[in-house]
Amino acid sequence: MSAHVEEARIARLRRIFTQGDAQGIEVDVGDDAAVLAPSLGREVLSVDAHVEHVHFRRAWLSSRELGARAAMAALSDLAAMGAEPRVVLLSLALSDDVTDEELEALALGVRDACDETGARVVGGNLARASEISIHTTVIGRMTEAPLRRDGAKVGDGVYVTGTLGAAALGLAALEAGRSDTLLAPFVARWRRPRARVSEGRRLIDLASAAIDVSDGLALDLSRLAEASGVGIDLDAKDLPLEPDHAACAALLSRDPITLALIGGEDYELAFTAPLSRALAGLATRIGSVVARPGVVATDASGRPLEVAGFDHFARRATSAG
Amino acid sequence: MSAHVEEARIARLRRIFTQGDAQGIEVDVGDDAAVLAPSLGREVLSVDAHVEHVHFRRAWLSSRELGARAAMAALSDLAAMGAEPRVVLLSLALSDDVTDEELEALALGVRDACDETGARVVGGNLARASEISIHTTVIGRMTEAPLRRDGAKVGDGVYVTGTLGAAALGLAALEAGRSDTLLAPFVARWRRPRARVSEGRRLIDLASAAIDVSDGLALDLSRLAEASGVGIDLDAKDLPLEPDHAACAALLSRDPITLALIGGEDYELAFTAPLSRALAGLATRIGSVVARPGVVATDASGRPLEVAGFDHFARRATSAG
Repeated sequence: MSAHVEEARIARLRRIFTQGDAQGIEVDVGDDAAVLAPSLGREVLSVDAHVEHVHFRRAWLSSRELGARAAMAALSDLAAMGAEPRVVLLSLALSDDVTDEELEALALGVRDACDETGARVVGGNLARASEISIHTTVIGRMTEAPLRRDGAKVGDGVYVTGTLGAAALGLAALEAGRSDTLLAPFVARWRRPRARVSEGRRLIDLASAAIDVSDGLALDLSRLAEASGVGIDLDAKDLPLEPDHAACAALLSRDPITLALIGGEDYELAFTAPLSRALAGLATRIGSVVARPGVVATDASGRPLEVAGFDHFARRATSAG
Repeated sequence: MSAHVEEARIARLRRIFTQGDAQGIEVDVGDDAAVLAPSLGREVLSVDAHVEHVHFRRAWLSSRELGARAAMAALSDLAAMGAEPRVVLLSLALSDDVTDEELEALALGVRDACDETGARVVGGNLARASEISIHTTVIGRMTEAPLRRDGAKVGDGVYVTGTLGAAALGLAALEAGRSDTLLAPFVARWRRPRARVSEGRRLIDLASAAIDVSDGLALDLSRLAEASGVGIDLDAKDLPLEPDHAACAALLSRDPITLALIGGEDYELAFTAPLSRALAGLATRIGSVVARPGVVATDASGRPLEVAGFDHFARRATSAG
């Protein structure tokens, strides 16, 4: 890419990102750095990456969906803290075959995610690479105390928003090249995740600890449990699933409960809260915080589940329990 | 990389980045996001990327130098605004052949750059990719008005800190596989750039506009001139060069002035300031701000230089002048 082409592309991106509300932005995209006016409140910061061939294949989603997906995955970390998204910085590495139209669609997708969550892109970088990667830094703010991973207490309930394993099912359908009508809503869940920002905000005074489900419920809850110095018992029968979840899992020869336990990229919020808290309509109770370390899921008869990819946690629980 | 390996690597990085002063950091690396305590002042934000095969080859520098270099390049954007670096978020994409030792050295290099500039890594992401890339988000703060690109006034002097073209000469030596003793300091300039943070701070009340020289003096000054709605005349004879610059350029069959004008990655600060300002010892005057758009460099006899890769700017000047 010559400097000319690069400058033209950057100018296109600048036009896309500088539309809309610029309140609180003293220097917008286009200088060496952006400048935000002083503001009250804590700053909440995170960064996430989407790498081609690792996190996605281009055939699996549109450029616009890709941009929105990358941004939503990053914004989900702010949701898990209870923060209000504020600004985004975008570092794009593009292979030479990415067209101007694809780049513009990708940027529009990032803007879609920002518009939906109240954020704005204030800075970015464009680099060449052998594959597409999207590195998204998100910054939110909050005056309240943030939701952390380390506040779970023995006796708390364990909860999750939405449904589990749907994105993993959609990804499995894409990997298998299946286009059954029944699978379409699951594919859509993988393609178009939503950061649970408003749910995170509502949890501020309710939850004792929270995390977003990006790497799978079992792994993410084990992180929360370890940070809190507690363990978690999950009731497999209580895991919230989409109505067609079991039928679709069968279509793809997958175990529905395993998908719900270790399937990643749902971007739901998993959290703990005292049982007395009113959480109706916000989340489903899926288990309890216990003193014994580790995360254990039991079936309807109370037997610990043998789940592929989940033994890591069972073992940890066993060795310490 | 299995989740196990990934977690172990992340734990190593966390240990490296959580040493030292954590003042103002309410939630450090390790939760979904970092949280900074409320603070006075504006926030200054930028992101920069270092991609293998595009910005560097592994044979050209150590892992520790690579980490420091990537961070310094990003921090240079804060220097150009006159901001004090505060926090860094690091998104690393690594190919499978990067060893734990190389990763640790890279992280130590990032920490070196942070230690030198007063910043701290508060968040990061680790992803697999087919090549190494380092995406560094930097956030600084300042209570003063930031140095922008768009404040240059006709009649101002044009200045630059340090010397020009040294990093480009070092890069040329690396590309040519040359290891002449005379070239070593130039190679070191490419390998170990320094963000001009303290110089940027000193410029706050002196400069009318500023930019860091990352893509080459001519290109970066053309951006400053365009943003300010002015033009710039440069005196080639005044460009500050290292004592051995001409001799080393000859060794590599390069034109010394061209290297100084279009060689990138010096990370010096170029700025404009009223002629009355006391800038002794801080920078070298290299030209003047003029009304005619474009950047033109003239030789000792006043003739516009014909410089390969520079005609873009000359043409712009001609068509508008």
